[in-house]
Amino acid sequence: MQFTLEDITADEIDRRRGVYGPLTDSVRDLIDAVIRTEVDAADIDVARRRIDEVVADLRSRQIDGSYGVRFNTDAVGMPWGNAVMGVRNAIAPPVRTVADREGVTAEFTLGAAYEGPAHHVHGGVCAMVLDQVLGEAAAADDIPCFTGTITVTYRRPTPLGALSARAEIVDRDGRKKIVRGTLSDADGVTAEAEGVFIVPKNWSGPSNLK
Amino acid sequence: MQFTLEDITADEIDRRRGVYGPLTDSVRDLIDAVIRTEVDAADIDVARRRIDEVVADLRSRQIDGSYGVRFNTDAVGMPWGNAVMGVRNAIAPPVRTVADREGVTAEFTLGAAYEGPAHHVHGGVCAMVLDQVLGEAAAADDIPCFTGTITVTYRRPTPLGALSARAEIVDRDGRKKIVRGTLSDADGVTAEAEGVFIVPKNWSGPSNLK
Repeated sequence: MQFTLEDITADEIDRRRGVYGPLTDSVRDLIDAVIRTEVDAADIDVARRRIDEVVADLRSRQIDGSYGVRFNTDAVGMPWGNAVMGVRNAIAPPVRTVADREGVTAEFTLGAAYEGPAHHVHGGVCAMVLDQVLGEAAAADDIPCFTGTITVTYRRPTPLGALSARAEIVDRDGRKKIVRGTLSDADGVTAEAEGVFIVPKNWSGPSNLK
Repeated sequence: MQFTLEDITADEIDRRRGVYGPLTDSVRDLIDAVIRTEVDAADIDVARRRIDEVVADLRSRQIDGSYGVRFNTDAVGMPWGNAVMGVRNAIAPPVRTVADREGVTAEFTLGAAYEGPAHHVHGGVCAMVLDQVLGEAAAADDIPCFTGTITVTYRRPTPLGALSARAEIVDRDGRKKIVRGTLSDADGVTAEAEGVFIVPKNWSGPSNLK
């Protein structure tokens, strides 16, 4: 997998986060409004043309292709295009984890844009979020790995709203790390996941990529 | 699970699709542009304010909460808030399946907004798409069911771009349907999935929900 190095300071990263974060939040708000609006067809058409104008302005200068995974020379990561936690990706809820000694935890809200069954989170979105959280738990020991297999077991429908996820490495077997995690609402676990993460064959030393 | 009935004709559904589809496509375009733009901070700020104005206009009349899963009285479905295939949901790529005698197939494109590893599809997005496609294959026999478990095995990284997915019911065991599927690029399978789908205990007859 490729990484892009950008020779910028931590302060510059913070400045950029302050520029792109609010724009992305506004687009998240727009996604929700487009699902829920009841304005009439003429107003929808006006909205569409105004969005197209914004798109044209933003595209007047843009990178080729996708954002990639970027780091600065101090190994501070900027996975800002990431579909689950990217600062510049309005598809991302975003889900951001906090690490502790045993694993990682995330608290987040899934609104109308993450619906599958009526008023409940899409089962595929549950799987997507769990994949990210298990992957971060797997990488928390600083030994790089990729996802081999993930199994998600649905205990009951997950309601839209405030949710949390938790994951920990529970076992190791050669180049495999076994990671377990849960997705929960206020009443407890709604889905469980187990992932097998594989350390690359050619890996031979610590990673400094945070 | 709840469904909402709307007493509208197939023509009215088509008309609404023609109103909301282009708006949603424009928001998809915006999501991509926000990830990739290189315009300066002042222009980003202008874009954000213009988007906020569109949001305010759209929200001047809107439904409470999420879209739900709607049908008309002829049982034509409008799962338009769905996170993977919804006509009004810009998070949805969208992935739309075509049914044949044995199962369902979908062809779709995943761009910058679905990135995980640099220039590759997020593993969680692969799982999300496979969950939807397996779920549609499971429901293709018109016997309602919900997802019990899904296992995704990653064969190799999935590149961003044109992809396809395929799923079929491969076995039945009491109230369980076993469904298998694949995600592929032009060079072949990148990920495989197996799902166990459960028919509700109280189900006792054909469903007419298409």
